[in-house]
Amino acid sequence: MRLLVALGGNAIKQAHEEGTPEEQFANCKTTTTLMAEIVSRMSEKDRLIITHGNGPQAGNLLVQQDVGKDHVPPQTMDIVGAMTQGQIGYMLQQTLLNFLKDRGLKVPVAAVVNQVLVNEDDPEFFGDAASKPVGNFLTEEEAKQLQREHPEYIVKKVKPKGERAWRRTVPSPDPIANIGSEGIKRMVDAGIIVIASGGGGIPVVLDENGHYKGVEAVIDKDLAGERLAEVVNADVFLILTDVEKAKLNFGKPNEEEVGAITLSEARKYLAGGHFLAGSMGPKVKACIRFLEWGGKKAIITSLDKAVEALKDKTGTRIIPG
Amino acid sequence: MRLLVALGGNAIKQAHEEGTPEEQFANCKTTTTLMAEIVSRMSEKDRLIITHGNGPQAGNLLVQQDVGKDHVPPQTMDIVGAMTQGQIGYMLQQTLLNFLKDRGLKVPVAAVVNQVLVNEDDPEFFGDAASKPVGNFLTEEEAKQLQREHPEYIVKKVKPKGERAWRRTVPSPDPIANIGSEGIKRMVDAGIIVIASGGGGIPVVLDENGHYKGVEAVIDKDLAGERLAEVVNADVFLILTDVEKAKLNFGKPNEEEVGAITLSEARKYLAGGHFLAGSMGPKVKACIRFLEWGGKKAIITSLDKAVEALKDKTGTRIIPG
Repeated sequence: MRLLVALGGNAIKQAHEEGTPEEQFANCKTTTTLMAEIVSRMSEKDRLIITHGNGPQAGNLLVQQDVGKDHVPPQTMDIVGAMTQGQIGYMLQQTLLNFLKDRGLKVPVAAVVNQVLVNEDDPEFFGDAASKPVGNFLTEEEAKQLQREHPEYIVKKVKPKGERAWRRTVPSPDPIANIGSEGIKRMVDAGIIVIASGGGGIPVVLDENGHYKGVEAVIDKDLAGERLAEVVNADVFLILTDVEKAKLNFGKPNEEEVGAITLSEARKYLAGGHFLAGSMGPKVKACIRFLEWGGKKAIITSLDKAVEALKDKTGTRIIPG
Repeated sequence: MRLLVALGGNAIKQAHEEGTPEEQFANCKTTTTLMAEIVSRMSEKDRLIITHGNGPQAGNLLVQQDVGKDHVPPQTMDIVGAMTQGQIGYMLQQTLLNFLKDRGLKVPVAAVVNQVLVNEDDPEFFGDAASKPVGNFLTEEEAKQLQREHPEYIVKKVKPKGERAWRRTVPSPDPIANIGSEGIKRMVDAGIIVIASGGGGIPVVLDENGHYKGVEAVIDKDLAGERLAEVVNADVFLILTDVEKAKLNFGKPNEEEVGAITLSEARKYLAGGHFLAGSMGPKVKACIRFLEWGGKKAIITSLDKAVEALKDKTGTRIIPG
């Protein structure tokens, strides 16, 4: 069995935290204890591949870059993505290696820095379609100032009310392919636990010379994780988030948890608008793509229910059909 | 032939530059054009492994973290190292992949985030022995203020004169082993061009539970590169810096360039104090270690002379004997 796990932001930094090294390592430990538990149940032919979000870390780095801009040139979003892949790849790798050592498991772990190809004609790149908020919430005055300083930015009101309702938003284009997939596949085949495509991967397009070139964007990490699942030939795609199950009629009186469903049911629910865009929506969409590609099972659940969900005891589980 | 190349700081950011994304990508292109040229001359059994410095990038990030410290918690040196591995690993990987594509070469490239083990009893961790300056040059007043804010820092006068003669210095412990070496070895064996141990690797020690734990330190990238060369079973270790050859009696009237020398000659020159500590010294030391381990040839030269040096036409070349 080849299992690809996509870790949510809370696996590394919780919403109420500032993001100190201590806090982040503590969260990584909670996450990787569980990953080590999963590895300990695997046979020699099984494989674990990990991907993760980077929202809070990229947000913090953007703030540092902005405050420090008179001293040091800010880096572009592609480089920011790469830096957070380094940061989170390190913390996950270190804590996972330690737990594997405790269990006497000698499985190599490697975190790779990798790019994901997007289409420069993706609708997210046009007009003010950009949908991914990044960095701090701003007041209207701060938003106007940011827009004056950076006429190329898209600064939007992202909450209907509240003083700090504005944020910079960047395009979130659809991932087409994981670049370096041949290398990642060889690593997985060689028995390495690979951490890849962090933060949705570093977004790049093909320029007029056929060269990869970074773009100011953030790719959804679950949709990018699904592309990675194809590369490594995963059987099971496990998305870990902050809820045990996806819900139908979310936020309504007739709200209802989703357990085991088929691909066609999942398609129907997604088309029926049951899941929030930018939240459960892309997760379900990623699961659907995975099954359409040929995956055997996609699961959405919370970190603490992961082992039970892998045994089919809880979580939203989508299977072919 | 397995070749490990250690790239100096000027391969990514030149001393007079600020470090904008454009500048850094331009430098990376100059560097990786050459790497692609080297790959194009290799046979299918040959391997290229790349390591690199991170001084300017880590310095810039430390400044951003310090200026932004009232908004975002600064990360520790181990995490800073990991972030620069992501940043530089991305830029080198992207530009190298593009040049390989231009030449029709389909060799996978992977940049990995990886740790290097040091000894917590290393003399660099004690008293004010720390020898690696990081971050900006400071005035005496700024140095005193930094010391007041961070009593745990070692802030030193690093130049005999000049207004800005003070800097924070951190321990630069001797690298013992590359962690994750089994994974890196499997990747190289599988035909992947691996970029690893960037910035000397993320410095970690073993704690009382036998767990890896990050430390506030910076490992010399050439000494760490030598440990990586052992892991990947390199035949040739090529250190690229800003001079074509090392020099005897450096800075004196009888200064003399070093061409092809034996291991025992190299040992004699190093012991004779011919090479600057923190500059040519560790490079020659790394070459000596490489030959003592069993390497066939170590070369120190400049980026633009690399191809000629590999043909034995220039550079300081150290061989067994």
